[in-house]
Amino acid sequence: MIRYCHSCGSGVTHRIPEGDSLQRAVCDACGTIHYQNPKMVVGCLATYGDRILLCKRAIEPRLGLWTLPAGFMENNESASEGAAREAMEEANARVEIADLYTVYSIPHISQVYMMFLAKLLDPDVSPGIESLEVKLATEDEIPWDQLAFTMVRRSLEHFLEDRRNGVFVPRFGDIRPPHR
Amino acid sequence: MIRYCHSCGSGVTHRIPEGDSLQRAVCDACGTIHYQNPKMVVGCLATYGDRILLCKRAIEPRLGLWTLPAGFMENNESASEGAAREAMEEANARVEIADLYTVYSIPHISQVYMMFLAKLLDPDVSPGIESLEVKLATEDEIPWDQLAFTMVRRSLEHFLEDRRNGVFVPRFGDIRPPHR
Repeated sequence: MIRYCHSCGSGVTHRIPEGDSLQRAVCDACGTIHYQNPKMVVGCLATYGDRILLCKRAIEPRLGLWTLPAGFMENNESASEGAAREAMEEANARVEIADLYTVYSIPHISQVYMMFLAKLLDPDVSPGIESLEVKLATEDEIPWDQLAFTMVRRSLEHFLEDRRNGVFVPRFGDIRPPHR
Repeated sequence: MIRYCHSCGSGVTHRIPEGDSLQRAVCDACGTIHYQNPKMVVGCLATYGDRILLCKRAIEPRLGLWTLPAGFMENNESASEGAAREAMEEANARVEIADLYTVYSIPHISQVYMMFLAKLLDPDVSPGIESLEVKLATEDEIPWDQLAFTMVRRSLEHFLEDRRNGVFVPRFGDIRPPHR
Protein backbone atom coordinates (compact mmCIF):
# COMPACT_ATOMS: atom_id res chain seq x y z
CA MET A 1 0.00 0.00 0.00
CA ILE A 2 1.50 3.33 -1.09
CA ARG A 3 1.05 5.99 1.61
CA TYR A 4 3.78 8.51 0.73
CA CYS A 5 5.06 10.00 -2.52
CA HIS A 6 8.37 8.42 -3.55
CA SER A 7 9.45 11.66 -5.22
CA CYS A 8 8.72 14.30 -2.55
CA GLY A 9 7.71 12.36 0.58
CA SER A 10 4.26 13.98 0.93
CA GLY A 11 1.22 11.89 1.83
CA VAL A 12 -0.65 10.61 -1.23
CA THR A 13 -4.37 10.43 -1.87
CA HIS A 14 -5.98 7.42 -3.55
CA ARG A 15 -8.22 8.60 -6.35
CA ILE A 16 -8.87 8.31 -10.08
CA PRO A 17 -6.68 10.87 -11.86
CA GLU A 18 -8.25 13.02 -14.57
CA GLY A 19 -8.39 11.13 -17.86
CA ASP A 20 -7.80 7.79 -16.12
CA SER A 21 -10.29 5.10 -15.14
CA LEU A 22 -8.59 3.39 -12.19
CA GLN A 23 -7.70 4.55 -8.69
CA ARG A 24 -4.02 5.46 -8.24
CA ALA A 25 -1.85 6.80 -5.43
CA VAL A 26 -1.64 10.46 -6.45
CA CYS A 27 0.62 13.09 -4.89
CA ASP A 28 -1.23 16.40 -4.78
CA ALA A 29 1.96 18.19 -3.69
CA CYS A 30 4.18 17.37 -6.69
CA GLY A 31 1.77 15.69 -9.11
CA THR A 32 3.43 12.26 -9.22
CA ILE A 33 1.08 9.39 -10.04
CA HIS A 34 2.28 6.05 -8.66
CA TYR A 35 1.25 3.37 -11.12
CA GLN A 36 1.32 -0.24 -9.95
CA ASN A 37 1.46 -2.97 -12.58
CA PRO A 38 1.72 -6.76 -12.74
CA LYS A 39 5.11 -8.34 -12.16
CA MET A 40 6.66 -10.79 -14.56
CA VAL A 41 8.14 -14.06 -13.34
CA VAL A 42 10.58 -15.65 -15.78
CA GLY A 43 12.01 -19.14 -15.66
CA CYS A 44 12.79 -22.26 -17.62
CA LEU A 45 12.07 -25.90 -18.12
CA ALA A 46 15.67 -27.05 -18.56
CA THR A 47 16.52 -30.53 -19.72
CA TYR A 48 19.62 -32.69 -19.88
CA GLY A 49 18.90 -35.69 -22.06
CA ASP A 50 15.57 -37.02 -20.80
CA ARG A 51 15.93 -35.34 -17.39
CA ILE A 52 14.26 -32.14 -16.17
CA LEU A 53 15.81 -29.70 -13.70
CA LEU A 54 13.69 -29.27 -10.55
CA CYS A 55 14.39 -27.19 -7.42
CA LYS A 56 13.06 -27.73 -3.90
CA ARG A 57 12.11 -24.35 -2.47
CA ALA A 58 14.06 -23.03 0.52
CA ILE A 59 11.80 -19.96 0.82
CA GLU A 60 8.15 -19.15 1.24
CA PRO A 61 5.71 -19.46 -0.34
CA ARG A 62 5.59 -23.25 -0.76
CA LEU A 63 8.80 -23.89 1.17
CA GLY A 64 9.83 -27.54 0.72
CA LEU A 65 7.85 -28.06 -2.48
CA TRP A 66 9.32 -28.54 -5.95
CA THR A 67 9.40 -25.94 -8.69
CA LEU A 68 11.01 -25.03 -11.97
CA PRO A 69 13.68 -22.34 -11.58
CA ALA A 70 11.93 -18.97 -11.93
CA GLY A 71 11.83 -15.55 -10.32
CA PHE A 72 10.99 -11.89 -10.77
CA MET A 73 12.32 -10.36 -13.95
CA GLU A 74 14.64 -7.39 -13.27
CA ASN A 75 14.84 -4.04 -15.01
CA ASN A 76 17.26 -3.85 -17.94
CA GLU A 77 17.25 -7.55 -18.76
CA SER A 78 15.33 -9.49 -21.39
CA ALA A 79 12.90 -12.23 -20.40
CA SER A 80 15.29 -14.95 -21.64
CA GLU A 81 18.24 -13.38 -19.82
CA GLY A 82 16.17 -13.36 -16.65
CA ALA A 83 15.23 -17.02 -17.13
CA ALA A 84 18.90 -18.00 -17.49
CA ARG A 85 19.86 -15.88 -14.47
CA GLU A 86 17.24 -17.61 -12.31
CA ALA A 87 18.53 -21.06 -13.33
CA MET A 88 21.99 -19.98 -12.21
CA GLU A 89 20.77 -18.41 -8.95
CA GLU A 90 18.52 -21.27 -7.88
CA ALA A 91 20.43 -24.30 -9.18
CA ASN A 92 23.91 -23.11 -10.27
CA ALA A 93 22.75 -24.30 -13.67
CA ARG A 94 24.28 -23.09 -16.92
CA VAL A 95 21.53 -23.15 -19.52
CA GLU A 96 20.99 -22.24 -23.12
CA ILE A 97 17.55 -20.71 -23.47
CA ALA A 98 15.50 -21.88 -26.47
CA ASP A 99 11.88 -20.99 -27.24
CA LEU A 100 9.28 -19.34 -25.07
CA TYR A 101 7.04 -22.21 -24.02
CA THR A 102 4.31 -21.32 -21.49
CA VAL A 103 2.85 -17.93 -20.55
CA TYR A 104 0.34 -17.75 -17.70
CA SER A 105 -1.46 -14.73 -16.31
CA ILE A 106 -2.41 -15.01 -12.65
CA PRO A 107 -4.70 -11.98 -12.23
CA HIS A 108 -5.54 -12.39 -8.54
CA ILE A 109 -1.89 -11.95 -7.60
CA SER A 110 -1.03 -9.61 -10.53
CA GLN A 111 1.73 -11.81 -11.92
CA VAL A 112 2.54 -13.14 -15.37
CA TYR A 113 4.75 -16.23 -15.72
CA MET A 114 6.89 -16.70 -18.82
CA MET A 115 8.63 -20.09 -18.97
CA PHE A 116 11.20 -20.99 -21.62
CA LEU A 117 12.45 -24.31 -22.90
CA ALA A 118 16.17 -24.60 -22.19
CA LYS A 119 19.08 -27.01 -22.49
CA LEU A 120 21.35 -27.62 -19.52
CA LEU A 121 24.90 -27.17 -20.80
CA ASP A 122 26.23 -29.62 -18.22
CA PRO A 123 24.61 -31.76 -15.51
CA ASP A 124 26.64 -30.19 -12.72
CA VAL A 125 23.86 -28.49 -10.75
CA SER A 126 23.62 -27.68 -7.03
CA PRO A 127 21.28 -25.73 -4.74
CA GLY A 128 21.49 -21.95 -4.78
CA ILE A 129 20.49 -19.91 -1.72
CA GLU A 130 16.76 -20.18 -2.50
CA SER A 131 16.82 -23.97 -2.97
CA LEU A 132 17.08 -26.78 -0.42
CA GLU A 133 17.87 -29.37 -3.07
CA VAL A 134 17.96 -29.66 -6.86
CA LYS A 135 17.59 -32.71 -9.07
CA LEU A 136 17.54 -33.86 -12.65
CA ALA A 137 14.34 -35.88 -12.72
CA THR A 138 13.18 -38.42 -15.27
CA GLU A 139 9.45 -38.44 -16.01
CA ASP A 140 8.93 -41.20 -13.43
CA GLU A 141 10.75 -39.21 -10.76
CA ILE A 142 8.63 -36.03 -10.96
CA PRO A 143 7.04 -35.47 -7.49
CA TRP A 144 3.54 -34.68 -8.80
CA ASP A 145 2.05 -34.43 -5.31
CA GLN A 146 4.77 -32.07 -4.09
CA LEU A 147 4.80 -29.41 -6.81
CA ALA A 148 4.81 -25.80 -5.60
CA PHE A 149 2.61 -24.07 -8.18
CA THR A 150 -0.08 -24.76 -10.77
CA MET A 151 2.17 -23.25 -13.46
CA VAL A 152 4.82 -25.89 -12.68
CA ARG A 153 2.36 -28.76 -13.01
CA ARG A 154 0.86 -27.39 -16.23
CA SER A 155 4.25 -26.67 -17.80
CA LEU A 156 5.48 -30.17 -16.97
CA GLU A 157 2.29 -31.80 -18.27
CA HIS A 158 2.49 -29.88 -21.55
CA PHE A 159 6.18 -30.66 -21.92
CA LEU A 160 5.76 -34.41 -21.40
CA GLU A 161 2.79 -34.52 -23.79
CA ASP A 162 4.68 -32.53 -26.43
CA ARG A 163 7.82 -34.64 -26.01
CA ARG A 164 5.77 -37.77 -26.68
CA ASN A 165 4.32 -36.10 -29.77
CA GLY A 166 7.71 -34.88 -30.93
CA VAL A 167 6.64 -31.24 -31.32
CA PHE A 168 6.68 -28.44 -28.74
CA VAL A 169 3.70 -26.11 -28.94
CA PRO A 170 3.73 -22.84 -26.97
CA ARG A 171 0.85 -22.49 -24.52
CA PHE A 172 -0.69 -19.46 -22.92
CA GLY A 173 -3.56 -19.06 -20.55
CA ASP A 174 -4.80 -17.81 -17.21
CA ILE A 175 -4.59 -19.37 -13.78
CA ARG A 176 -7.47 -18.45 -11.46
CA PRO A 177 -8.05 -19.19 -7.78
CA PRO A 178 -8.34 -21.67 -6.16
CA HIS A 179 -6.26 -23.59 -8.71
CA ARG A 180 -2.93 -21.89 -8.06
CA MET B 1 13.82 7.71 -9.05
CA ILE B 2 12.61 6.65 -5.60
CA ARG B 3 13.70 9.15 -2.91
CA TYR B 4 11.18 8.48 -0.11
CA CYS B 5 9.70 5.31 1.38
CA HIS B 6 6.13 4.76 0.19
CA SER B 7 5.24 3.05 3.48
CA CYS B 8 6.59 5.48 6.10
CA GLY B 9 7.76 8.57 4.17
CA SER B 10 11.40 8.42 5.38
CA GLY B 11 14.25 9.08 2.97
CA VAL B 12 15.55 5.88 1.33
CA THR B 13 19.13 4.79 0.70
CA HIS B 14 20.15 3.12 -2.56
CA ARG B 15 22.15 0.02 -1.77
CA ILE B 16 22.29 -3.74 -2.28
CA PRO B 17 20.20 -5.40 0.47
CA GLU B 18 21.67 -8.38 2.30
CA GLY B 19 21.20 -11.56 0.26
CA ASP B 20 20.44 -9.58 -2.90
CA SER B 21 22.71 -8.76 -5.84
CA LEU B 22 21.18 -5.54 -7.19
CA GLN B 23 20.86 -2.04 -5.81
CA ARG B 24 17.41 -1.20 -4.43
CA ALA B 25 15.77 1.76 -2.74
CA VAL B 26 15.87 0.59 0.89
CA CYS B 27 14.14 2.27 3.83
CA ASP B 28 16.37 1.99 6.88
CA ALA B 29 13.58 3.35 9.08
CA CYS B 30 10.91 0.69 8.43
CA GLY B 31 12.80 -1.91 6.38
CA THR B 32 10.75 -1.64 3.18
CA ILE B 33 12.64 -2.58 0.02
CA HIS B 34 11.22 -0.90 -3.08
CA TYR B 35 11.63 -3.33 -5.97
CA GLN B 36 11.28 -1.98 -9.49
CA ASN B 37 10.49 -4.42 -12.26
CA PRO B 38 9.77 -4.34 -15.99
CA LYS B 39 6.34 -3.28 -17.11
CA MET B 40 4.21 -5.33 -19.45
CA VAL B 41 2.53 -3.77 -22.46
CA VAL B 42 -0.36 -5.82 -23.84
CA GLY B 43 -2.16 -5.33 -27.12
CA CYS B 44 -3.55 -7.00 -30.19
CA LEU B 45 -3.32 -7.38 -33.91
CA ALA B 46 -7.05 -7.33 -34.63
CA THR B 47 -8.45 -8.19 -38.03
CA TYR B 48 -11.77 -7.84 -39.79
CA GLY B 49 -11.67 -9.94 -42.94
CA ASP B 50 -8.38 -8.99 -44.61
CA ARG B 51 -8.12 -5.66 -42.77
CA ILE B 52 -5.97 -4.83 -39.74
CA LEU B 53 -6.91 -2.34 -37.03
CA LEU B 54 -4.37 0.52 -36.74
CA CYS B 55 -4.42 3.58 -34.47
CA LYS B 56 -2.75 6.95 -35.01
CA ARG B 57 -1.26 8.07 -31.72
CA ALA B 58 -2.66 11.19 -30.04
CA ILE B 59 -0.04 11.05 -27.27
CA GLU B 60 3.72 11.02 -26.91
CA PRO B 61 5.91 9.18 -27.58
CA ARG B 62 5.52 8.98 -31.36
CA LEU B 63 2.49 11.27 -31.52
CA GLY B 64 1.00 11.16 -35.03
CA LEU B 65 2.51 7.77 -35.93
CA TRP B 66 0.59 4.53 -36.37
CA THR B 67 0.47 1.67 -33.90
CA LEU B 68 -1.42 -1.45 -32.93
CA PRO B 69 -3.70 -0.91 -29.91
CA ALA B 70 -1.60 -1.65 -26.81
CA GLY B 71 -0.90 -0.26 -23.36
CA PHE B 72 0.30 -1.01 -19.87
CA MET B 73 -1.24 -4.10 -18.31
CA GLU B 74 -3.10 -3.31 -15.06
CA ASN B 75 -3.11 -5.22 -11.79
CA ASN B 76 -5.85 -7.85 -11.41
CA GLU B 77 -6.36 -8.44 -15.11
CA SER B 78 -5.00 -11.17 -17.38
CA ALA B 79 -2.82 -10.32 -20.36
CA SER B 80 -5.62 -11.11 -22.82
CA GLU B 81 -8.14 -9.06 -20.82
CA GLY B 82 -5.70 -6.15 -20.93
CA ALA B 83 -5.26 -6.53 -24.68
CA ALA B 84 -9.05 -6.41 -25.22
CA ARG B 85 -9.36 -3.41 -22.87
CA GLU B 86 -6.74 -1.47 -24.82
CA ALA B 87 -8.52 -2.14 -28.13
CA MET B 88 -11.67 -0.69 -26.59
CA GLU B 89 -9.89 2.31 -25.04
CA GLU B 90 -7.88 3.26 -28.12
CA ALA B 91 -10.28 2.37 -30.92
CA ASN B 92 -13.69 1.63 -29.37
CA ALA B 93 -13.11 -1.81 -30.84
CA ARG B 94 -14.86 -4.92 -29.58
CA VAL B 95 -12.47 -7.81 -30.10
CA GLU B 96 -12.30 -11.51 -29.42
CA ILE B 97 -8.76 -12.34 -28.33
CA ALA B 98 -7.26 -15.49 -29.86
CA ASP B 99 -3.67 -16.73 -29.46
CA LEU B 100 -0.65 -14.96 -28.06
CA TYR B 101 1.35 -14.03 -31.14
CA THR B 102 4.45 -11.89 -30.46
CA VAL B 103 6.43 -11.32 -27.26
CA TYR B 104 9.26 -8.79 -27.27
CA SER B 105 11.56 -7.79 -24.42
CA ILE B 106 12.90 -4.24 -24.67
CA PRO B 107 15.56 -4.27 -21.93
CA HIS B 108 16.79 -0.69 -22.29
CA ILE B 109 13.36 0.65 -21.36
CA SER B 110 12.43 -2.29 -19.09
CA GLN B 111 9.29 -3.23 -20.96
CA VAL B 112 7.90 -6.49 -22.32
CA TYR B 113 5.33 -6.40 -25.12
CA MET B 114 2.77 -9.19 -25.47
CA MET B 115 0.65 -8.95 -28.61
CA PHE B 116 -2.31 -11.23 -29.30
CA LEU B 117 -4.09 -12.16 -32.50
CA ALA B 118 -7.70 -11.01 -32.29
CA LYS B 119 -10.88 -10.83 -34.33
CA LEU B 120 -12.84 -7.59 -34.53
CA LEU B 121 -16.44 -8.47 -33.70
CA ASP B 122 -17.72 -5.62 -35.87
CA PRO B 123 -16.04 -3.00 -38.09
CA ASP B 124 -17.52 -0.07 -36.16
CA VAL B 125 -14.32 1.46 -34.72
CA SER B 126 -13.56 5.07 -33.80
CA PRO B 127 -10.73 6.96 -32.07
CA GLY B 128 -10.49 6.72 -28.28
CA ILE B 129 -8.89 9.53 -26.26
CA GLU B 130 -5.34 8.34 -27.02
CA SER B 131 -5.91 8.09 -30.79
CA LEU B 132 -6.18 10.81 -33.44
CA GLU B 133 -7.59 8.43 -36.02
CA VAL B 134 -8.19 4.70 -36.45
CA LYS B 135 -8.44 2.64 -39.60
CA LEU B 136 -8.97 -0.86 -40.91
CA ALA B 137 -6.05 -1.19 -43.30
CA THR B 138 -5.52 -3.70 -46.07
CA GLU B 139 -1.93 -4.87 -46.57
CA ASP B 140 -1.42 -2.21 -49.27
CA GLU B 141 -2.66 0.53 -46.95
CA ILE B 142 -0.21 -0.08 -44.08
CA PRO B 143 1.83 3.13 -43.59
CA TRP B 144 5.23 1.37 -43.26
CA ASP B 145 7.15 4.65 -43.07
CA GLN B 146 4.89 6.04 -40.33
CA LEU B 147 4.82 3.19 -37.81
CA ALA B 148 5.39 4.20 -34.19
CA PHE B 149 7.44 1.28 -32.86
CA THR B 150 9.70 -1.58 -33.97
CA MET B 151 7.33 -4.05 -32.31
CA VAL B 152 4.51 -2.83 -34.57
CA ARG B 153 6.56 -3.28 -37.72
CA ARG B 154 7.79 -6.73 -36.69
CA SER B 155 4.36 -7.93 -35.62
CA LEU B 156 2.82 -6.76 -38.91
CA GLU B 157 5.63 -8.32 -40.99
CA HIS B 158 5.25 -11.68 -39.19
CA PHE B 159 1.48 -11.57 -39.53
CA LEU B 160 1.53 -10.88 -43.26
CA GLU B 161 4.13 -13.60 -43.84
CA ASP B 162 2.19 -16.10 -41.73
CA ARG B 163 -1.09 -15.21 -43.44
CA ARG B 164 0.47 -15.92 -46.83
CA ASN B 165 1.73 -19.26 -45.48
CA GLY B 166 -1.61 -20.06 -43.90
CA VAL B 167 -0.20 -20.78 -40.45
CA PHE B 168 0.40 -18.38 -37.56
CA VAL B 169 3.59 -19.07 -35.61
CA PRO B 170 4.20 -17.29 -32.28
CA ARG B 171 7.38 -15.22 -32.20
CA PHE B 172 9.44 -13.98 -29.30
CA GLY B 173 12.62 -11.99 -29.16
CA ASP B 174 14.38 -8.90 -27.93
CA ILE B 175 14.41 -5.38 -29.32
CA ARG B 176 17.64 -3.47 -28.65
CA PRO B 177 18.56 0.14 -29.31
CA PRO B 178 18.78 1.86 -31.74
CA HIS B 179 16.22 -0.30 -33.52
CA ARG B 180 13.22 0.68 -31.44
